[in-house]
Amino acid sequence: MGIEEIVANYDKKSISIATACSHSSLQIFNGARKEGLKSIGIAFKEKPKFYNAFPLGKPDEFFIVDDYKKINENAEYFHRKNAIIIPHGSFVEYLGAENFLKLNIPTFGNRAVLEWESDREKERQWLESAGLDMPEIIEDPKDIDKPVIVKYYGAKGGKGFFIAKDYKDFKKKIDESKPHIIQEFLIGTRYYIHYFYSPIKKDGYRVGKGSLQLLSIDRRDETNIDEAHRLGSITELEAMGIQPTFIVTGNIPIVLRESLLPKVFDMGARVVKRSYELFGGMIGPFCLETVVTEKLQFRVFEISARIVAGTNLFISGSPYSDLIQPGLSTGQRIAQEIKYAAEHDMLEEIIT
Amino acid sequence: MGIEEIVANYDKKSISIATACSHSSLQIFNGARKEGLKSIGIAFKEKPKFYNAFPLGKPDEFFIVDDYKKINENAEYFHRKNAIIIPHGSFVEYLGAENFLKLNIPTFGNRAVLEWESDREKERQWLESAGLDMPEIIEDPKDIDKPVIVKYYGAKGGKGFFIAKDYKDFKKKIDESKPHIIQEFLIGTRYYIHYFYSPIKKDGYRVGKGSLQLLSIDRRDETNIDEAHRLGSITELEAMGIQPTFIVTGNIPIVLRESLLPKVFDMGARVVKRSYELFGGMIGPFCLETVVTEKLQFRVFEISARIVAGTNLFISGSPYSDLIQPGLSTGQRIAQEIKYAAEHDMLEEIIT
Amino acid sequence: MGIEEIVANYDKKSISIATACSHSSLQIFNGARKEGLKSIGIAFKEKPKFYNAFPLGKPDEFFIVDDYKKINENAEYFHRKNAIIIPHGSFVEYLGAENFLKLNIPTFGNRAVLEWESDREKERQWLESAGLDMPEIIEDPKDIDKPVIVKYYGAKGGKGFFIAKDYKDFKKKIDESKPHIIQEFLIGTRYYIHYFYSPIKKDGYRVGKGSLQLLSIDRRDETNIDEAHRLGSITELEAMGIQPTFIVTGNIPIVLRESLLPKVFDMGARVVKRSYELFGGMIGPFCLETVVTEKLQFRVFEISARIVAGTNLFISGSPYSDLIQPGLSTGQRIAQEIKYAAEHDMLEEIIT
Repeated sequence: MGIEEIVANYDKKSISIATACSHSSLQIFNGARKEGLKSIGIAFKEKPKFYNAFPLGKPDEFFIVDDYKKINENAEYFHRKNAIIIPHGSFVEYLGAENFLKLNIPTFGNRAVLEWESDREKERQWLESAGLDMPEIIEDPKDIDKPVIVKYYGAKGGKGFFIAKDYKDFKKKIDESKPHIIQEFLIGTRYYIHYFYSPIKKDGYRVGKGSLQLLSIDRRDETNIDEAHRLGSITELEAMGIQPTFIVTGNIPIVLRESLLPKVFDMGARVVKRSYELFGGMIGPFCLETVVTEKLQFRVFEISARIVAGTNLFISGSPYSDLIQPGLSTGQRIAQEIKYAAEHDMLEEIIT
Repeated sequence: MGIEEIVANYDKKSISIATACSHSSLQIFNGARKEGLKSIGIAFKEKPKFYNAFPLGKPDEFFIVDDYKKINENAEYFHRKNAIIIPHGSFVEYLGAENFLKLNIPTFGNRAVLEWESDREKERQWLESAGLDMPEIIEDPKDIDKPVIVKYYGAKGGKGFFIAKDYKDFKKKIDESKPHIIQEFLIGTRYYIHYFYSPIKKDGYRVGKGSLQLLSIDRRDETNIDEAHRLGSITELEAMGIQPTFIVTGNIPIVLRESLLPKVFDMGARVVKRSYELFGGMIGPFCLETVVTEKLQFRVFEISARIVAGTNLFISGSPYSDLIQPGLSTGQRIAQEIKYAAEHDMLEEIIT
Repeated sequence: MGIEEIVANYDKKSISIATACSHSSLQIFNGARKEGLKSIGIAFKEKPKFYNAFPLGKPDEFFIVDDYKKINENAEYFHRKNAIIIPHGSFVEYLGAENFLKLNIPTFGNRAVLEWESDREKERQWLESAGLDMPEIIEDPKDIDKPVIVKYYGAKGGKGFFIAKDYKDFKKKIDESKPHIIQEFLIGTRYYIHYFYSPIKKDGYRVGKGSLQLLSIDRRDETNIDEAHRLGSITELEAMGIQPTFIVTGNIPIVLRESLLPKVFDMGARVVKRSYELFGGMIGPFCLETVVTEKLQFRVFEISARIVAGTNLFISGSPYSDLIQPGLSTGQRIAQEIKYAAEHDMLEEIIT
């Protein structure tokens, strides 16, 4: 049975949502609760005890797996629960891309986006063809004429990156035996912009056949790079044998200068439109990871095509979402979208 | 007709507020809405589309101009709407000081403050005579005996500033042909303190004939200085040909050590009192831009005599304003003040 | 009369709370108000005027002392008010440890914790025996093989600390005549985790006979270390004659990566359990001050065994406490605990 058929058989009056117990799950379960949807927490080996400390962020039930890859074998359980999977970064990572794509459970959003998001070259093709300004790629290290960040392929979570100030510095630091990419180091201040695109809501900021929202903004906090300055400059740290790392440990709330909002919406709209041309559309929450330069221009270094953990700051609303509906979180917005689609018999437009 | 006469003719039961569509306008329109006042968004050339994404931050109507300087030609429109202009930094900048001062539309606050705020020397005269501790000015570069920040006159938005560590560094960097000012570089942590002074409310923290509130505190986020450390120290960046810049791109929420609050109110009270002696008073929101030193002393490097963009973080309240009224923003506080004055026939005390 | 007897005589229907007018007092008074408890602000010499600006953070009455040490002489006043002291860092500091321990007024929490928290060696014994990973102590400076922070004994509030990159740097900076401790400098990002342990609530995340909550997380903002990078690296500053200092001036809100929450609760639970074994238990709010390393491990450099000022950010709730009860602050949680204990005749279990 295909996903559309499965959903066609769902009881639209008792939809539940399901996700893996990590990343932004407290917010997702809390959002479902606020909208009156049931929730299922998919947990590894045992029921995580910490949810007991958060009665409003706890799922209604747990589904325990000893291997995330086996979720598909239990698809019927989820079908019986009229469940829709809310994929977040950890869910996709736990399952693996291949298993995620094969998952025989209705999933919020368009799974086809994964291919375009996870492949650096396709991601660049998408964003650049949408008119976004990405960091320059330096093909030949001899052309390094400004600071660069060098990323080994497969480097996980910000380890295995290094900064090189010039060609000489690059030569000193590079392990040529490992495949890598050399990228311009963006100079400016970082803003991680949390959007939501609905293909079925026709009010608000219209894009394509739907509408676009800005729900919140954060700045990622990365160990050790974001607090290294308390000890010394990167160069000084390297001299002490300490390498900078870029591993996300948390998030700090932030707002952008209001005069930049037209650009924020323009960027979001372009990315959505282009997604429809390339692979049938991006649906629901996404994040553009940007640097604002001294010319007040946005440079975009990455896109996350689903809920990002930075939204966890805004479980009770943000300076942006409060202008839509007081207290609105991204998790709640997802639940609203599903609820609205279920009520209007449009679920097939927002799931795959 | 003078401003007082215009306001005397206003229908006090249907006051509206108006401001330019930028800076802190979402918050100002949202605040008006919360207090039941109508709002007018003054926009350049076309209705900005992004307000559609924020139903609770959208003005009730737009007034489109092809040149901000022509607002005055349309004063009658605003009179008919019983409109009071809420000036913010961008509004004043778009109009220009001269046009702002001549504007024949009732304006919240005392316009005379502009002269004292925009002229560096008058600003210093005001704040120092109020007893605030400002950064030292170094007249003769040869006297530079600690780090300084050098500002070329007319440098806009934090570009055209540079830091010099000593006289030698200064000589290397300065373009002597351009007029400039040499200021002590303040060492400490920055707090941008958002106050509100009401000349008509007699409860609370009494100052002069009115009362003073602390509504929120932020830290400005400036490109590229605030994230430059991810690449290297300022000196190292300069060696790579990258100059530090101080252009505000956003704001981060923060609270101050509670034991500093008596000083915070004392500073605010002194500035307000002195404003009455010098130019008839400062009314409504203002911001002291401070550095807290290792001796827990405040050094004040600037005053903004109107709503600042840092308040945009606190559209649904702050750790300070929530102790006044849960959810109170500076935008809402402005609307409250106007509403209260209209109801008590005191508008002439808070507008010019 | 002992504390238990005093409390036994209290009118459980009109309990009030009392604390010194500083640190986190606005939040504590606001929390009491939300829960319908009366509050008493203990102030030095005069009623602090700034509370007038915060009607919802103002105590119901003030008790003025000309010397904090004399509170005990006025114990009867507090008994008559059925008052329970909420100790915070400044309260304990103003009174002095000895006077605090002798205070003949019921006090929220277990006073015995003070001995274990204020003595560096006992604190280490407690936390390490609970299985927490603390920074290494270097006994012999010749063994310095990584960056260290050197703290002179009795250095107050972060002054009198210095960073040394290696043995040579240490030798250059140390004043050997002063007793000091040499500690590994932790490399990573700082998270100050605000917990609450209730020995009388049996729902939620069970620990011992009670339950543990995570209420919020902040990052302390320290002058001048946290903004020094705007001028130069620490080494460059030292060359300009500027020493880094670590004096807390405020707090910034932050959230942790959700996948770290199981560790967060595990650490909190271990510390609480061990506190019962060592000294009869730690009750109410406490804070673990941590650094998250590139291996996503927590290193704990300090514990505060009472309400910390970082909770002042969350006077109307946090991304964590909102999942317990929307808008819940640590101050309110304290008031809830006292109210619940009073209603269930269990006050003696949470006071000393």
